[in-house]
Amino acid sequence: MEIDSHTMELLSQIRKKSPLIHNITNQVVMNVNANILLAIGASPVMAHSLQEVEEMSAISSALVLNIGTLDEKLIQSMILAGKTANEKNIPVILDPVGAGATQFRTNSAKKILSQVDVSVVRGNASEIFSLYSDLFKTKGVDSSIDSETFADEIIELAKKIKDETGAVTAVSGKEDIISNGKSTIKVKNGHEILTKITGIGCGLSAVCGAFASVSDNNLLESIASAFIYYGACAEITSEETILPGSFAVKFLDTLYSAPPEKIKELANAEVIKN
Amino acid sequence: MEIDSHTMELLSQIRKKSPLIHNITNQVVMNVNANILLAIGASPVMAHSLQEVEEMSAISSALVLNIGTLDEKLIQSMILAGKTANEKNIPVILDPVGAGATQFRTNSAKKILSQVDVSVVRGNASEIFSLYSDLFKTKGVDSSIDSETFADEIIELAKKIKDETGAVTAVSGKEDIISNGKSTIKVKNGHEILTKITGIGCGLSAVCGAFASVSDNNLLESIASAFIYYGACAEITSEETILPGSFAVKFLDTLYSAPPEKIKELANAEVIKN
Amino acid sequence: MEIDSHTMELLSQIRKKSPLIHNITNQVVMNVNANILLAIGASPVMAHSLQEVEEMSAISSALVLNIGTLDEKLIQSMILAGKTANEKNIPVILDPVGAGATQFRTNSAKKILSQVDVSVVRGNASEIFSLYSDLFKTKGVDSSIDSETFADEIIELAKKIKDETGAVTAVSGKEDIISNGKSTIKVKNGHEILTKITGIGCGLSAVCGAFASVSDNNLLESIASAFIYYGACAEITSEETILPGSFAVKFLDTLYSAPPEKIKELANAEVIKN
Repeated sequence: MEIDSHTMELLSQIRKKSPLIHNITNQVVMNVNANILLAIGASPVMAHSLQEVEEMSAISSALVLNIGTLDEKLIQSMILAGKTANEKNIPVILDPVGAGATQFRTNSAKKILSQVDVSVVRGNASEIFSLYSDLFKTKGVDSSIDSETFADEIIELAKKIKDETGAVTAVSGKEDIISNGKSTIKVKNGHEILTKITGIGCGLSAVCGAFASVSDNNLLESIASAFIYYGACAEITSEETILPGSFAVKFLDTLYSAPPEKIKELANAEVIKN
Repeated sequence: MEIDSHTMELLSQIRKKSPLIHNITNQVVMNVNANILLAIGASPVMAHSLQEVEEMSAISSALVLNIGTLDEKLIQSMILAGKTANEKNIPVILDPVGAGATQFRTNSAKKILSQVDVSVVRGNASEIFSLYSDLFKTKGVDSSIDSETFADEIIELAKKIKDETGAVTAVSGKEDIISNGKSTIKVKNGHEILTKITGIGCGLSAVCGAFASVSDNNLLESIASAFIYYGACAEITSEETILPGSFAVKFLDTLYSAPPEKIKELANAEVIKN
Repeated sequence: MEIDSHTMELLSQIRKKSPLIHNITNQVVMNVNANILLAIGASPVMAHSLQEVEEMSAISSALVLNIGTLDEKLIQSMILAGKTANEKNIPVILDPVGAGATQFRTNSAKKILSQVDVSVVRGNASEIFSLYSDLFKTKGVDSSIDSETFADEIIELAKKIKDETGAVTAVSGKEDIISNGKSTIKVKNGHEILTKITGIGCGLSAVCGAFASVSDNNLLESIASAFIYYGACAEITSEETILPGSFAVKFLDTLYSAPPEKIKELANAEVIKN
């Protein structure tokens, strides 16, 4: 199947099954990420207490871990939930928000990666580099590394991450790079205004959770599909407005109702064998 | 007075008095629920620290407890605030978000109900059943039980809840059922798109707090009025859009500015003597 | 330079430098405040863990402390971050949300002021009075004191605050009053609908952080500029809608894209030598 058809097939699976996506995420984006998941047809739950994360993960179809407003207890909960997800073969998405900005963030993300089998690490280039390489330094939670210019370095990094953790690497940027070390998919969908709205990158991680939850055996392609759908919806929305307040609202509308033929038309992905 | 006139009378009381509504609620919905309360004319405050909840509840006109992102400390705060509210005769609304999904949620909601005199329990059918019956099981935080089909069972449950706790039961669903065991009001207002926006059910619990705060002696009817106003506003909004992002925005507009005559025209409630 | 030109000059500095603004803020407004900062061109980060606040503040250009959903640990983090900011000469904005409503809020705000060199205290009149005067009492988090009627008392208070803490006082109200005790700027921009949307006052505190971060030596005027820009954007938005849901969305659009000449035209400030 072509990747654009694959994207719509996975989306219709999400809408049919309404998979429960367990998010242990940051306080900034909880609301918007829940709305994003609802818009694509998934069923979000936010639960972080040590007393319940195992039970919640056990009944979920994917687990999304996001360290945006982390503290020690939350990291404990993430690890506990992650171990349950691993036992139940539920995919785990890690979004290492702001890794590289403080030692605590970098170390917490690494701790999760060392104790949980993460299926997908999704972040911007500077966050991902901060975990596995000394090439670059993060400033705050914004990306300062151009994914297009450093595509080769990112693919090298993805190989390393695959070897060390087994995870697929998914880097957002001007050009999105999703790689399992062996194969890489570059996705060229999206719109610049997304960087002016908080929680949008985190929302993509949540959407990766939903796509992973209905993935057939090709996780790499399923994650690329999440990027394609998300990015194409941004492009469709940008035809209506490129002001950040209005865009955020209409982006939810588009995620909920984008015409399949329009997504297929816009899908812009390139598969590379490494 | 007819219930539609009663609804508008209570709303105008809220707008006149601007009652302070103390919310100990979940992190997902804090923002949208504060905006919903402001839109109907109430004055929201979110405060959860053990150091201040008693003092805050003491100066409030209603207390809304919502366990959506609970932890042990938060439940302690809820109980402490609830006891203060009870001493001061301030109505307490409990929204047992996700009860049934994990033991911790179910037990925490029961713990609150056993230690605090709750005035109204508002939730979806699966949440309410999980607290008092083994008939059904919750999946995540969404309702999986059709309130229309199980209306009789819900009314039976309401009797049990009234006997055991004294609380009015308010179940959201295709058909809303508000019952104190003796009388039941079915409200048929609302719109399906509400289920695709996070925090809307929680927002209704907050609105129940505002309506309860200005309630005359008929709490049952006041809560039904909250449901009518909220549901009718959803219907009015749906004439403009049924896309979730835009709907959420315009729903706030409608809650703020719905014409009284339109609400009266749409009000769709049936009173049943049990 | 005239204050309207100064406002646009500071704004263009923010857009050029994209200063990292470290927020330790409340859970109600995190999302909207991050979006407000992004809209004006700043780079927001929310981080509150004791393990990272020092490191985060050290790389930031301003620190914004907001006690809206405080607890003991959060106040500790605020003090720790504040001390780091002081060492690094980074401006610190304090928003004492709800001070006066509970002893815990009042005492926590005072504790911060006694241990951190705060550059600007921004709040409504009742919050600020509760910290330094027994004249008035706060109800919840809304202002109950008319800043226009009590302008003289507010300016007196600002002198006291300047003497005791060194901070500039910035009071939002019908008429905004920004004062360092010696000079006072009254800003008459803004719109009433802002009081019906949660997080807008808190958002102004965050914007003060951004303007302070690019301030030349005149902090008083830089904070007044933040008020002017924010208030003028509210006026521009009110030409499109004065319904709270839509206003909140379009206000972000305006903050992002307001025409400089329009801001200059609307700027309405008066400088008073005390």
